[in-house]
Amino acid sequence: MNNASKSQKNEPFRYEQIASEVIRLIAQGTYRPGERIPSVRQMSTQQGVSISSVLQAYLQLENQGVIEARPQSGYYVRAPSAENYPEPEISSPSLDPNHVNLHDLMMMAMRDSTNASLIQLGAAMPNLELLPIERINRILASLARTAEPGAHSYELPPGLEELRVQIAKRALLSGCQFSPNEIVITSGGVEGIHLCLYAVCNPGDIVAIESPMYFGTLQLLEVHGLRALEIPTNPREGISLSALQFAIEHNPIKAVLTISNFNNPLGSCIPDEKKKDLVELLARYEIPLIDNDVSGEIYFSEKRPMVTKAFDQKGLVMLCSSFSKDISPSLRVGWVVPGRFKNKIEWLKFTTSAATARLPQMAIAQFLESGGYDHQLRRIRREYASNVALLSQAVTRAFPAGTRVTRPVGGFVLWVQLPENVDSLELYALSLKNNITITPGYLFSPTNHFSNFIRLNAAAWSYPIERAVRRLGELVFELAGT
Amino acid sequence: MNNASKSQKNEPFRYEQIASEVIRLIAQGTYRPGERIPSVRQMSTQQGVSISSVLQAYLQLENQGVIEARPQSGYYVRAPSAENYPEPEISSPSLDPNHVNLHDLMMMAMRDSTNASLIQLGAAMPNLELLPIERINRILASLARTAEPGAHSYELPPGLEELRVQIAKRALLSGCQFSPNEIVITSGGVEGIHLCLYAVCNPGDIVAIESPMYFGTLQLLEVHGLRALEIPTNPREGISLSALQFAIEHNPIKAVLTISNFNNPLGSCIPDEKKKDLVELLARYEIPLIDNDVSGEIYFSEKRPMVTKAFDQKGLVMLCSSFSKDISPSLRVGWVVPGRFKNKIEWLKFTTSAATARLPQMAIAQFLESGGYDHQLRRIRREYASNVALLSQAVTRAFPAGTRVTRPVGGFVLWVQLPENVDSLELYALSLKNNITITPGYLFSPTNHFSNFIRLNAAAWSYPIERAVRRLGELVFELAGT
Repeated sequence: MNNASKSQKNEPFRYEQIASEVIRLIAQGTYRPGERIPSVRQMSTQQGVSISSVLQAYLQLENQGVIEARPQSGYYVRAPSAENYPEPEISSPSLDPNHVNLHDLMMMAMRDSTNASLIQLGAAMPNLELLPIERINRILASLARTAEPGAHSYELPPGLEELRVQIAKRALLSGCQFSPNEIVITSGGVEGIHLCLYAVCNPGDIVAIESPMYFGTLQLLEVHGLRALEIPTNPREGISLSALQFAIEHNPIKAVLTISNFNNPLGSCIPDEKKKDLVELLARYEIPLIDNDVSGEIYFSEKRPMVTKAFDQKGLVMLCSSFSKDISPSLRVGWVVPGRFKNKIEWLKFTTSAATARLPQMAIAQFLESGGYDHQLRRIRREYASNVALLSQAVTRAFPAGTRVTRPVGGFVLWVQLPENVDSLELYALSLKNNITITPGYLFSPTNHFSNFIRLNAAAWSYPIERAVRRLGELVFELAGT
Repeated sequence: MNNASKSQKNEPFRYEQIASEVIRLIAQGTYRPGERIPSVRQMSTQQGVSISSVLQAYLQLENQGVIEARPQSGYYVRAPSAENYPEPEISSPSLDPNHVNLHDLMMMAMRDSTNASLIQLGAAMPNLELLPIERINRILASLARTAEPGAHSYELPPGLEELRVQIAKRALLSGCQFSPNEIVITSGGVEGIHLCLYAVCNPGDIVAIESPMYFGTLQLLEVHGLRALEIPTNPREGISLSALQFAIEHNPIKAVLTISNFNNPLGSCIPDEKKKDLVELLARYEIPLIDNDVSGEIYFSEKRPMVTKAFDQKGLVMLCSSFSKDISPSLRVGWVVPGRFKNKIEWLKFTTSAATARLPQMAIAQFLESGGYDHQLRRIRREYASNVALLSQAVTRAFPAGTRVTRPVGGFVLWVQLPENVDSLELYALSLKNNITITPGYLFSPTNHFSNFIRLNAAAWSYPIERAVRRLGELVFELAGT
């Protein structure tokens, strides 16, 4: 069998691979908008596939609006559509606090999110291929080989000192000066928020939150028996301070919960000046702020946005974060800087989970110290910014008029408002039948007022994902009856 | 410098090393009670130390009652005193439920327990030298070297299937048949109990507990705002069923919390028949039983005692355990078999800590599958049984009349009742000045009725520990005024 016939063995499937490769090269920035991609003949030679397969791939990419043919010249990467669908407007939730009751829905979404046979457009899972897994594995292997028995004793709160030192150093970049002694290590970021709620709230209390809010956090409110007071939130600039002040003046609010850098699902970022105002507003009322900065390092702009903690004069800001989004989800290492609640958080951590595993803490400390983290982050930011843009464009191409999409300035999720009459749970069910999962908007509010929204994950971009977005668009058309 | 002078360089300290070595050899069973140990001359040659150093060591061991000199014959290991101090009586706590308020005391004890410059007689830390650390490290290193990026994705509840399969297989030995699907993996054993309390209790509810009860569990009751109803507990056979039934008939008890195999601090074991009665009693009243089996594998008898779960007909028993005491405290892997509360526990686990780290789960699954665990456990059981016996004898030798000590049938802690007028917090303070930590009895009850008790850790045995016990005895004499 010669090379040509070998390469054409699975020819029927090759055109999809070609299309996928072109999309990947564009996403990576190898070919930029307006640039010419290899000719049909060049591509056929490069990839060892037939001319007809390449033609088929290019035609499909043209139909999808990814490339355009220019007569006598070749195929070019299309400039991103200047007319992406508009952004959603600021949210307008109910003015009353509400108990949360979302657990059945969430468990369903969780189960589907681990089904490897589905195209995962929903779960906010980072792109493992962009994470420094190889490097971390090498460090872990080396640590395990050389670890003394003592490395297996309980690493009691506040957690490994070397790691706390690295976190404190890194925090300087977000405008924060705190000592390693002010940090408590947790088993992932979620545990940190869980402990903060314990520290400052009792069942029945009211917590003000950005709206929409990441459903994991809403679930924590449900577990703690707390009532959520949803505050209107701008899809670019985060929580409305005037609305928050109004809410504070009319309700006994015990804590405020924000994702000030890159709200999940909005991708919004509270401007630094406004962060300062937020902290000062809450300081006047002596209300603790629990700020989840888990995506804070994944910014698309030039400079790392500050964290609210940087403006904290009274020890009321509880900064929570983790390494799950930018190093490894499964090492389960997060941290809290709890301000005046430090002793309580340390006690709660010890009581509810005793210790955080030591080896992962050692590995992350070593990785941070070695300087590999910044290189890693630059790559992640570039890729996610590109993938978010590609997903937005794909949605704009595929979804019916009346759709709106956010303009995330960090993170890796997109929040999509569907035409009014499209129900996201119906879409969820239909998508599943097409082997696609999405996250229905219902999950992001205790009062169902995002019934026609969905969250999409933009961490990865590939031809199968692009195709799934197109299929999703068809389903939305179907449900919209347009 | 010749060998003799070299070996005698640090001569002043050598006699302590000799004494320590003899104690170790006895603890290991190399020399058994009634057997002759090497003569002074033999030991001097073997260890390369002077005759006078060996003599000094043997004299000290004789004073401590570890060995005895027989004229014209040599030195012999003393038979364990047939007259160890008697056991404490069954506890007689208050009949009313009480809120727990122990956190300041516990945090003090926790901080001292991590101070490496102190002799740790208090914290129930397993003996790391008996754990399969080397083996686990090798497995971890190999897994890390070969792990795919996918190994770093979230391992969502219920947790790694391979590990759940191993746990279900192993459970057959404790009389339990449950499927891997009935298990939820947790980040250590404490988290499991935390989740169980969440699943079945609300703040203000009453939970019946064995008395004394491990302070970590009492702290969980404090975190959850629960009231503890202490049930009289027999130092050999565990919780009193008649007292429990009386309590149930007079109080709206929401859950019962036991450590049916090797209560910490008692070392008691509820006999299997009585376990059945306990489960049936609670089934009649539809009350969930949270049973902490974390030390269940560390039995000193011939056969593994059953677990209460084996008698569970109605899905009311929530079995909690972990690998922290017999594989590694710092891998942070535990598990719950929650019966009818499975869905709720899974939701709670996901909500409050998202996932359990994957690599440690893989390592433990591989270790269990390879069969190394049983070998490991046989060694631990033998050593702990021996160390518990040595500690009991040392306490009997060193402490004043009126002292009582438990007869643990598993685990590795000893519960010591001091003369009535000795306050364990005063003893704690005095001990610290002597660089020794103990765990004061106050921590094991919300109502301070173990003020003249202490818990000692028997996981390790060495000359410095033996010496610390003697010093402790002097301090007890001092406080007792005898």
